Amino acid sequence: MKHVVIVGGGFAGLNAAKKLGGAPDVRVTLVDRQNYHLFQPLLYQVAMAGLSPADIAAPIRSLLARYENVSVLQGRIQSVDLQAQTVSADFGQLEFDYLLLCCGAIPTYFGHANWEEYAPSLKTVPQATEIRRRLLSSFEAAERVDDSARRRQLLTFVVIGGGPTGVELAGAIGEMSRFTLARDFRKIDTKLTRVILIESGPRILPSFSEKQASRATRDLEKLGVQVWPDSLVTRIDEDGVEVDAKRIHASTILWAAGVRGVEFVGCDGLEVDEQGRAVVDKDLSIGGHPNAFVAGDQASFTHQTGKPLPGTAPVAMQQGRFVARAILRDLAGKPREAFRFFDRGQMATIGRSRAIVEIGKLRFSGWFAWLTWLVVHIYFLVGFKNRLFVVLNWAWSYVTFRRGARLIVEHEWRFNKTDANDQTPSEK
Amino acid sequence: MKHVVIVGGGFAGLNAAKKLGGAPDVRVTLVDRQNYHLFQPLLYQVAMAGLSPADIAAPIRSLLARYENVSVLQGRIQSVDLQAQTVSADFGQLEFDYLLLCCGAIPTYFGHANWEEYAPSLKTVPQATEIRRRLLSSFEAAERVDDSARRRQLLTFVVIGGGPTGVELAGAIGEMSRFTLARDFRKIDTKLTRVILIESGPRILPSFSEKQASRATRDLEKLGVQVWPDSLVTRIDEDGVEVDAKRIHASTILWAAGVRGVEFVGCDGLEVDEQGRAVVDKDLSIGGHPNAFVAGDQASFTHQTGKPLPGTAPVAMQQGRFVARAILRDLAGKPREAFRFFDRGQMATIGRSRAIVEIGKLRFSGWFAWLTWLVVHIYFLVGFKNRLFVVLNWAWSYVTFRRGARLIVEHEWRFNKTDANDQTPSEK
Repeated sequence: MKHVVIVGGGFAGLNAAKKLGGAPDVRVTLVDRQNYHLFQPLLYQVAMAGLSPADIAAPIRSLLARYENVSVLQGRIQSVDLQAQTVSADFGQLEFDYLLLCCGAIPTYFGHANWEEYAPSLKTVPQATEIRRRLLSSFEAAERVDDSARRRQLLTFVVIGGGPTGVELAGAIGEMSRFTLARDFRKIDTKLTRVILIESGPRILPSFSEKQASRATRDLEKLGVQVWPDSLVTRIDEDGVEVDAKRIHASTILWAAGVRGVEFVGCDGLEVDEQGRAVVDKDLSIGGHPNAFVAGDQASFTHQTGKPLPGTAPVAMQQGRFVARAILRDLAGKPREAFRFFDRGQMATIGRSRAIVEIGKLRFSGWFAWLTWLVVHIYFLVGFKNRLFVVLNWAWSYVTFRRGARLIVEHEWRFNKTDANDQTPSEK
Repeated sequence: MKHVVIVGGGFAGLNAAKKLGGAPDVRVTLVDRQNYHLFQPLLYQVAMAGLSPADIAAPIRSLLARYENVSVLQGRIQSVDLQAQTVSADFGQLEFDYLLLCCGAIPTYFGHANWEEYAPSLKTVPQATEIRRRLLSSFEAAERVDDSARRRQLLTFVVIGGGPTGVELAGAIGEMSRFTLARDFRKIDTKLTRVILIESGPRILPSFSEKQASRATRDLEKLGVQVWPDSLVTRIDEDGVEVDAKRIHASTILWAAGVRGVEFVGCDGLEVDEQGRAVVDKDLSIGGHPNAFVAGDQASFTHQTGKPLPGTAPVAMQQGRFVARAILRDLAGKPREAFRFFDRGQMATIGRSRAIVEIGKLRFSGWFAWLTWLVVHIYFLVGFKNRLFVVLNWAWSYVTFRRGARLIVEHEWRFNKTDANDQTPSEK
């Protein structure tokens, strides 16, 4: 009975566990520090008050409940010993015959760790609800203040990073301020909200074609988003952002500029690329250890195109399933194959009923692209109930222009430690 | 143009604002430290992972958006000056012609403020998600540990307080452990979970009839809940609860034993009862100030039955509407009436498809009572969309025995301040 340890319940880990579920002569232990699998591609909708966290997350152990040979443990890995074939976690040690590391990526601020305080990223549920809190609190604060300069600052939103996430965030803020909030305020006109999308490169959505990117830019501008390419952020503080030594007074700043692979605690001598991702072999194994694999955002696979595959859900899912297959082939005495990513294309959505899609040579945009985006995301969304509820949420929002989760929720829950009042959003 | 200031967007404040909305010669400013109205009666379902916060909460300003003469401000009141007719908030000062205070109630630990750390109450959204986090984390931790005594402690849940909230919490934990989680774990048998409901009085649900209360007790026992009446909690700490000097080793403890009215900052010389609620006149005005009212959980109205009305939603709603009516009668030059609470009865639910209902002389229980409970709560739930989604959630849970929001979400969102891993639920 071979023991497979999977670290991380994201797209890679979950798909590997499912494929190994029910297989003979294998037992699987999946370890994750969260108890839930998160559907990352829709996390921006939680940050934008469109969905609740539970709509896009499901308990890992429920998703794997039907596989008797798979057990799930919530915990955190402290170190990995590839020689001794052990993983030590905060709850004890695990011995493995096969190891799959797929812990994903975390935001990087390129050496400015202090920027995170002022410009949260969007990788986790707590980050999403924090962004939601800041976004909505800015409008609330703007309604309260009298000083017009201060109000302008409160109604200025800066999104840093012109990739798909940055575009989705900026588009959603534009849409929210133009439509959702328009009727709700008395003193402020939310339509005057400034949304600025900052990209250091020559254009947004570099992974897309020139034509599609400029279409996306026009769509963003229709939603009131100013797109600033070739702009380098030189400073971020409580007052706003400094772009090429020019200051933007903004109270809400979002960071979508860069991520790095999660570090490998105790995997010394492991080759990582400049983004901290483990350089993997053709079969996704690492450091000459055929029984240790890395997949998903944490892996740097260059054997197919010469440059690393992007950190997307499709790559992670396919790599997860590949690793499971490789293990099963080992047990069956068959030779391993080399991993090949089958690219189904890419898409990005820009606010209400606009998107761009590229599938090989095929490229389209507008409402039909948005519909495609919708269907694909619903299809891949984990768990029947989540799908149903997200569809209903969207249908409802689409018809009413409303958003279903406009809650400003504070972190502090005690009455006796900090008075709950002290948690009222400061106007910072 | 008279200015009415309403402090608090709960049932009382919201209903008063709606009734004053659109009325001539009145403008209303509603101040709340949250941006959302919370449907308290269903908050226990958020704590029990059945609903998401957004399912039972809606932005106050959306709920009042259509009333041009009502403006909503998120902020916190620092003091009230009834003579000068001013309210000072963290965002500035408001002058009022009429004032309605309806800030609700907060949990009280009867002089043991330090107990809150170990035994959270259920009044706010952050508290509900904190309870959810502790509840689910205990099962996760139990699956990890090997020591059987420790596991028993992790699978022991104590609910303190035998009122409707305590009964609903205990019943939901029993149901969750018996049905929802049963298939998801490998090492532990969640059916062995101990749930203890502690009541200091001779029986649970004192406000209900003897017969109904004992029916509820039997229903709870069917769900594996032990009911301990006449039991006094003498100590709470990280190891568990001490009841009449007898120790229960429990890792999850919930407090539903008592609440007190929110204090009136700067309303010195105001008469309050032993539960900190403002003693109000027949017309809900206070301290001989006919233009200052208190309603809802914060008020102590004794003129109808001799003892204060209970802190329930129906009382708050009727009092809110009454105050609005009283103000409008003033403006119309009509005399004020005395408030009379029209009691539509009371109900409590005990887990899946069981409840008890008392409407005057009419008393029933079981499945039909549960259906009644369902219909009434759905009917009063604010906002069409919330209703729809709650119904669907319940229908789905009812059919599948699953729960839609089983997320353990941590408070910390930064990667660079505390590493997100450090937030993994400790086994405390």
